[in-house]
This record gives sequence, C-alpha cells and structure tokens, in this order.
Amino acid sequence: MSDMTSMADAPRSPGRPRSVRADEAIVEATLDLLAEGSTLEALSIEAIAARAGVGKATIYRRWSGKDALLMDALGRLKGVPPQPAGRSVRDDLVLLVGAVGHNVDPRAAKIMPCLVPEVNRSPDHFQLYQNIVAPRRKLMREVLRRGVDSGELRADVDIELAMALLTGPMLIQRVLRWHPELDDQILPERVVDAVLEGLRAR
Amino acid sequence: MSDMTSMADAPRSPGRPRSVRADEAIVEATLDLLAEGSTLEALSIEAIAARAGVGKATIYRRWSGKDALLMDALGRLKGVPPQPAGRSVRDDLVLLVGAVGHNVDPRAAKIMPCLVPEVNRSPDHFQLYQNIVAPRRKLMREVLRRGVDSGELRADVDIELAMALLTGPMLIQRVLRWHPELDDQILPERVVDAVLEGLRAR
Repeated sequence: MSDMTSMADAPRSPGRPRSVRADEAIVEATLDLLAEGSTLEALSIEAIAARAGVGKATIYRRWSGKDALLMDALGRLKGVPPQPAGRSVRDDLVLLVGAVGHNVDPRAAKIMPCLVPEVNRSPDHFQLYQNIVAPRRKLMREVLRRGVDSGELRADVDIELAMALLTGPMLIQRVLRWHPELDDQILPERVVDAVLEGLRAR
Repeated sequence: MSDMTSMADAPRSPGRPRSVRADEAIVEATLDLLAEGSTLEALSIEAIAARAGVGKATIYRRWSGKDALLMDALGRLKGVPPQPAGRSVRDDLVLLVGAVGHNVDPRAAKIMPCLVPEVNRSPDHFQLYQNIVAPRRKLMREVLRRGVDSGELRADVDIELAMALLTGPMLIQRVLRWHPELDDQILPERVVDAVLEGLRAR
C-alpha cells in the first residue's frame, strides 16, 4: 500500500519508495552474506543490518525474525514458480521439472549446496527448506492429480513417489552435479518422457 | 601380504599386525576429523598424523597424498558394494538402488552432506567424488545393459539417463531428506518398479 501511495505522490521520483528499497537492501545483504560463506546458523540480524545499512529495528518491523527473513531471501533465489498451462500433463511436467533446482539468482550456486549440511543438522532449517519448496511441490502434485483424473496417468500412481521420480534426477544433477555427461538443458524433457513411459520392454 | 606373514609368525598375538593397525588408525583419524566438522580442504596430513598417533612419514609411505587417503577413507564409509545375483534385472536393480546413499558407517551421516559444498567448489574434490561412486555406477550400468541385451528392458533405453532415474529419488531422500513422508526402507523397490513400468496409463 505505501508503495502505491508513494508512487502516486511522486510520480517522477526515480527508484522505488524508501520502505521497499530498505526491504530489498535487507534481502540483498542476507543473500550476499550467505554467498560469501556465512552459514544460516552463524548469520545474525546484526550482521545483516550492518551490511544493509539499516537499524535492526527496521528488520524487525518487516520480519518476525531471522527464519522469516531467510525464507523470503532464499525464496527470492528461485524466482517465481512457472505456471503450468493446464493442457498437456506431459508438457506441464516438463515445465515444472525444468524448474527443479533452477535458480534465477547466480548467488544460488554458492548458497544452495551449502544449505545441505545445515538442513541435515537442524530441524528448524529442515522445516525452512520444506517451506521454501512447498509451493513448487504443490504445483507438481496438482498436475499429477489432474493426469490421474483425466486418465492420462495410471489410476494407481503414487503421487508422492512420482514427484520423487521426477524431481530426483534433476536435483542430483543440478545440486550435486551428479553425472558430468548428462545435459542439464534437455534433461527435463528426457526425464519426464522416461518416467512416463517406463524402461520395461512391452 | 605382510598381514598373512605376521599372522603365520605369531598366531597367538592379539590384534592385527602393526602396519595394518597403523593404516586403520590413520583412516579412522581421517573420518573422525571429518565427522567433527573439518572440511576436506582444511584437513591436513599433520592433523591426521597427530590424531592417529603416527608420524607424517607413516602416512606418506602408504598414501601418495591427502586425496588418495581421503578416497580410501570416504570409500570405507560406504562399505563393500552389493553383488547382483545376475538372475532378475528387476531384483538386481532393487539391490543396487537400495545401496544408493546407504553407508555402513554412522559417521557418514555427518560427513556426506558436508561434502556437497566442497564437491561443487573444487574440481579436485568433484573428481574424488566421481572416483568414489564409479565402481557402484559401473555395477548398475552392467545390470541395465544386461536387461537391454536380454530384452527385459526396451532396446532404446538410455543407460546413463536410466541410472539418474533410479539413483535420484534415493539420493535426494537419503542425502537431502527430501520428503518426510516417503519411507526409505521400501523406497528402493517402489522406485525400481515405478521406473520400470512408467506412469502413463495404457
């Protein structure tokens, strides 16, 4: 709301209103510190405030605490989830599988692999990670359910298992660089088609 | 060889010969230091020697350097690869998929997730990781090729892609604890059957 009001008040002012700029500076400072090697655990609101050039109170006015801020900042790395077109289940899955492990922000390449140990170590960070991926999982789950309902997929498909089959190959390739010879670019389409058709001779 | 000779020379002596005990102490010290949070990069031959109670020369007599020692030590975490029985391709795949991300040493739970950032950061450590998993990949590749040759699997199966389909779901579940509701114990069988049969209605 303050955003729209400010813009209406000062239409020629360059940049965005002060509060949005502060929010962005805080998120950017968080991501910069993580990309420079800070662990989630070691990262402090003090350090973020200092880096962003704001007071701690400015951060606490906008976020309830470090985890809420981390969730916004880490969510930003991934960008907006792709929106399935809702026609072909196969094409929608290719779209969603292509987004698995994909990040719009180059800092993600430094940050995301480093989260793995912390997600394993801390129940709070595990929950944070689950919360970040939840909206994307929901999209994939909906497409798979649609496929079962429409008869394109087998009626007995286990949706959660199917999500693991579709997500696993992309995630190990993009987070672990699992196999040097698999081509990330064409992998989503090939994974979806192979998972749909199966390997068994008929 | 020295092992067998010593045992013949002194059949009543408790424990194993000195050289084997030193080797074990060195490998154990390496794994203990990694499990306590040392990175691969920070780990030094000095620290390992001190922890194992041996001189640096003892380590260099047995290993060419840190990477060779790390490879032996990390390889130890996983234990001996399972041996496919060679009858049913499906059963052999269940056996091998069950070993993906499985470790016999409890220190692996602390060490393996922590390798992810380093494997991403360093080409040497990436190569080390590839070398550790290579023998297991070879076993799976051979079972899949056998399935294609026998006609159990489609003639046009892409072997490397098929390995990613089988490995990915287990690895994300065991290394990233990807989905809290999937049961690790029954996952290998379910992954193999789903990948073989495919999701598409027929």
